[in-house]
Amino acid sequence: MTKLTHEAKGTFAIAPTPFHDDGRIDEKSIDRLTDFYAEIGCDGVTVLGIMGEAPKLEGAESEEVAKRFIKRAKNMQVIVGVSAPGFAAMRSLARASMDAGAAGVMIAPLPTLRTDDQITGYFKQAVEAVGTDIPWCLQDYPLTLNVIFTPGVIRKIVMDNPSCVMLKHEDWPGLEKISTLRGFQKDGSLRPLSILTGNGATFLDFEMERGADGAMTGYAFPEMLIDVVRLSKEGKRDAAHDLFDAHLPLIRYEQQPAIGLAVRKHVLQKRGIIASSAQRKPGSSISAIAKSEVDYLLSRVARVDRRAHLQPQSSAAG
Amino acid sequence: MTKLTHEAKGTFAIAPTPFHDDGRIDEKSIDRLTDFYAEIGCDGVTVLGIMGEAPKLEGAESEEVAKRFIKRAKNMQVIVGVSAPGFAAMRSLARASMDAGAAGVMIAPLPTLRTDDQITGYFKQAVEAVGTDIPWCLQDYPLTLNVIFTPGVIRKIVMDNPSCVMLKHEDWPGLEKISTLRGFQKDGSLRPLSILTGNGATFLDFEMERGADGAMTGYAFPEMLIDVVRLSKEGKRDAAHDLFDAHLPLIRYEQQPAIGLAVRKHVLQKRGIIASSAQRKPGSSISAIAKSEVDYLLSRVARVDRRAHLQPQSSAAG
Amino acid sequence: MTKLTHEAKGTFAIAPTPFHDDGRIDEKSIDRLTDFYAEIGCDGVTVLGIMGEAPKLEGAESEEVAKRFIKRAKNMQVIVGVSAPGFAAMRSLARASMDAGAAGVMIAPLPTLRTDDQITGYFKQAVEAVGTDIPWCLQDYPLTLNVIFTPGVIRKIVMDNPSCVMLKHEDWPGLEKISTLRGFQKDGSLRPLSILTGNGATFLDFEMERGADGAMTGYAFPEMLIDVVRLSKEGKRDAAHDLFDAHLPLIRYEQQPAIGLAVRKHVLQKRGIIASSAQRKPGSSISAIAKSEVDYLLSRVARVDRRAHLQPQSSAAG
Amino acid sequence: MTKLTHEAKGTFAIAPTPFHDDGRIDEKSIDRLTDFYAEIGCDGVTVLGIMGEAPKLEGAESEEVAKRFIKRAKNMQVIVGVSAPGFAAMRSLARASMDAGAAGVMIAPLPTLRTDDQITGYFKQAVEAVGTDIPWCLQDYPLTLNVIFTPGVIRKIVMDNPSCVMLKHEDWPGLEKISTLRGFQKDGSLRPLSILTGNGATFLDFEMERGADGAMTGYAFPEMLIDVVRLSKEGKRDAAHDLFDAHLPLIRYEQQPAIGLAVRKHVLQKRGIIASSAQRKPGSSISAIAKSEVDYLLSRVARVDRRAHLQPQSSAAG
Repeated sequence: MTKLTHEAKGTFAIAPTPFHDDGRIDEKSIDRLTDFYAEIGCDGVTVLGIMGEAPKLEGAESEEVAKRFIKRAKNMQVIVGVSAPGFAAMRSLARASMDAGAAGVMIAPLPTLRTDDQITGYFKQAVEAVGTDIPWCLQDYPLTLNVIFTPGVIRKIVMDNPSCVMLKHEDWPGLEKISTLRGFQKDGSLRPLSILTGNGATFLDFEMERGADGAMTGYAFPEMLIDVVRLSKEGKRDAAHDLFDAHLPLIRYEQQPAIGLAVRKHVLQKRGIIASSAQRKPGSSISAIAKSEVDYLLSRVARVDRRAHLQPQSSAAG
Repeated sequence: MTKLTHEAKGTFAIAPTPFHDDGRIDEKSIDRLTDFYAEIGCDGVTVLGIMGEAPKLEGAESEEVAKRFIKRAKNMQVIVGVSAPGFAAMRSLARASMDAGAAGVMIAPLPTLRTDDQITGYFKQAVEAVGTDIPWCLQDYPLTLNVIFTPGVIRKIVMDNPSCVMLKHEDWPGLEKISTLRGFQKDGSLRPLSILTGNGATFLDFEMERGADGAMTGYAFPEMLIDVVRLSKEGKRDAAHDLFDAHLPLIRYEQQPAIGLAVRKHVLQKRGIIASSAQRKPGSSISAIAKSEVDYLLSRVARVDRRAHLQPQSSAAG
Repeated sequence: MTKLTHEAKGTFAIAPTPFHDDGRIDEKSIDRLTDFYAEIGCDGVTVLGIMGEAPKLEGAESEEVAKRFIKRAKNMQVIVGVSAPGFAAMRSLARASMDAGAAGVMIAPLPTLRTDDQITGYFKQAVEAVGTDIPWCLQDYPLTLNVIFTPGVIRKIVMDNPSCVMLKHEDWPGLEKISTLRGFQKDGSLRPLSILTGNGATFLDFEMERGADGAMTGYAFPEMLIDVVRLSKEGKRDAAHDLFDAHLPLIRYEQQPAIGLAVRKHVLQKRGIIASSAQRKPGSSISAIAKSEVDYLLSRVARVDRRAHLQPQSSAAG
Repeated sequence: MTKLTHEAKGTFAIAPTPFHDDGRIDEKSIDRLTDFYAEIGCDGVTVLGIMGEAPKLEGAESEEVAKRFIKRAKNMQVIVGVSAPGFAAMRSLARASMDAGAAGVMIAPLPTLRTDDQITGYFKQAVEAVGTDIPWCLQDYPLTLNVIFTPGVIRKIVMDNPSCVMLKHEDWPGLEKISTLRGFQKDGSLRPLSILTGNGATFLDFEMERGADGAMTGYAFPEMLIDVVRLSKEGKRDAAHDLFDAHLPLIRYEQQPAIGLAVRKHVLQKRGIIASSAQRKPGSSISAIAKSEVDYLLSRVARVDRRAHLQPQSSAAG
């Protein structure tokens, strides 16, 4: 597949890693999930991110999962999360993924980084470790990672490292950050950079208006992400918000910390895309009442967006 | 006014503290804000909470603000936030507030508390400090306070301290916590307790269904809180969600960390309820583009809820 | 007394705030403690710091304590800790202290500050709040305050704010930081700055060799601080280390988080300098076995430094 | 070798992982280091702990390092640190290590754990993952791991999991914790448990007196640990403290966060035990002036303990 550049845009789905109920990797569900993303029109897929339960995989498993997604994705670009406590593992996975045909990799900061200098220094070392020939996406996710990037720090990382071509933006609040970065580009102090936004799409409506190039997140109806990104680019503001608002009650429910992935996998399973909603231990799950709340939300979304009108769950293993 | 009991329910508005542009306390806006809460039918008002910029006030100012709200509130119950780094200030404000007619006080944990024993021990000391005769509300707000209460810890605090009559619930995720606490009451291990929910109302729809007694939060349209609480209690599930969902895009916008209070004060000023949206330093503000986004969201809410159809801002000083 | 300048040096004792057993401020012990510092030759006293239990005092009490120390100190310089969650209280205490004759004030960062920009921005606002005419000491204490200053950030704060004349250095590790700051001065990028070191003196021996101007900490034998600072300045390296090493087992014991202040007050009480070792709630205390360990350490120190040979505790109330 | 039991005592050295300057594992230095520990009389060696740079190794490397140590250790017990973000890697390394002859494993909590229930729940899952047949040591190290165990939580973990036979105690302050745990045993609520203490030995003198069974830490002169543990057990209090105090200035220097490992490896290299002081990236190093400070400290220790009188560094590769 083609390598990642700063011109990337559209919707990159954050893929969960499907497991069997006993914790083994479910390869068939990887295939089905990849096919699903391709069919609905995703521009790319990002695998082994935080919501991909990456830290729970052993090194060999990570490679296996990445390669399976890459092979199945065909022309769709795949970005592989390679964040790791040590550079040795980061390098191994990055190089193996690129060799297998990945479009690029994604790197998050270590949670212990605090000062601007520590942050920029870390990414310099990380790029040295994986190799300067691999295009990569910088992940800015303070809610979970507890590392805060100022716009100036992002600019420095991008300008110091030519192989950094994309920002996964998920600061909260984050709208002004997009405006500031786009302003840096207008004043010539920042080179072109693809900005895709995360945070479960909670602010996708306005992020697009502030200048984002698209979405990179894991909502269980990526079709909505694709449509909102498209409508927004076409200047159909009200239509974009109408669709977005119809999904927002469910987006909000899926964006809950700790249990959000359980909600997401539950819906993907209900949709017949993955066979099991199981997470590897230590994982989370949701109660029967929570499942009924999700069902109620789905029925309400379906009044506006028929794609949320789901078949009975028995089709999941189909 | 009557003292707070475990039977409290309905909507308690979290009041911002109005300031003039130069940082002085704006007494007239306190009066207007209090009248507004009474007119729309709030059951109570909570003042000097985190969103009330309490830590920025000096001791004498805190008393002054609390007394002004209490006097103006007449029959409406006022809860005064008395959280402080030291028990001396906590006691002073609590006793002065109760002497002035407050219904009760609210106490948050110190951000340095970590273990279950530290948490329960702290509240035991706090109750000793303010006096066991003052009914109080326990604030559970981990996102900002960084202290995590398990349901078992809440139960222990409530059972150890008879004067604790209310929980301000704003954990995230928090729905299961409500169910667990209500389950404790069913199994007889927890005595009656009022549970009002916060977090800017982001989950108010389901919190009511899980057993909350009402809302205690600061959304700029408390009328919606009142209606959703009422509709939910009347069993009108769809109607409650319909109204809630219409507001959710704005709720979400107002619930952004760091800048949420600026959004809230901006809307309250637009509504003519407070004269200035200024915060005391160090405070936050929002950009012109953010204000236009809020205007757009208001216009969309107004399609369903006419109360969001605002007059021009000039009426603010009216 | 004379105002604080960048030429300050020697030993500034961090004074605990003496309380009676019931939590009231003990004015007589303030006087006795101040006299003690003067008699042994301290160059200054810093009051209402973190170890002065400042956050537990109400506003009026803080002023009272500061004024009592200042009045009694006569020609000895007094620095008043004015750190506060809000600028209103910070300004009040700073101006009242200076009016009463303080030499300067000390300001610590809010624990929520993270990025370089947030830190430098905060101190700019703080200086505006207290007034640019008040000389002040910047407190760099990450272990407790959880805010990390790079040397570059310290330089920026100092260069942005001419009234900043002193650094209370207590980073850990911190030796290279002193060398780096002194290097900034050599290369002309940082103006003259007094650097006094804290952390309970755990590294005072080498801090002096790296270029510190003296000590600002609260060890229960400030005589040792004075001597080590003097010996080090006289170039008597081995003698400085010999004295320091004799005290180090006790320094280490007193530098334990959470209980260190209890150890310090216990020794000061044993020395007859303060009447009670009580802390205001929430406070810490030490067990009988811990007290016997301190006694044993004192007896060992006394083999080298006779000042640690203490009279029976009954003299405390003398 | 024999398996770990609650009767373990004496000195277990925390082994650094030796690397070549280019970051490759240095097997010969592993052998030399293991021989050194055996020769001086260590009772055991703990490998792949936090100071063993374990997170920087890939899975296969971790196994290789563990096996090399185990094979060389012969009769000396080896404990393998198996802490990992996921249970899959934890299980792999634990079982491979035990198959190779390890005495047991060590498990630290995930840094995200906060409440008592989260902590005890995590260790239950971890034990299920590695298998209940593997004896293990619980690591309590809040300064670095940011997880706080109360004594009651430790008791619950130990009582819930019969395979937990040892506590690596490195809370700070920590003396009362040892007393409390030993008190639990006296009152019958806690079964026998080996307690070895860490924190670079900063409080080893009193930890032994409070009831510790020995030391498990990584000071560059483990001979001192062995002697202090022995002297203390023989009741030779003054002799134990005399030796300890002679080393304390260096202990303190080596116990600095972030750079402590660089100091330790520097001294071990000077002693000719490891060939290079290099750390894998991201790692730390110390300046020339810091090295000269260490040399000065060594010369001072050597006045009391001749083992600190080191040969020129050229012998390192000997």
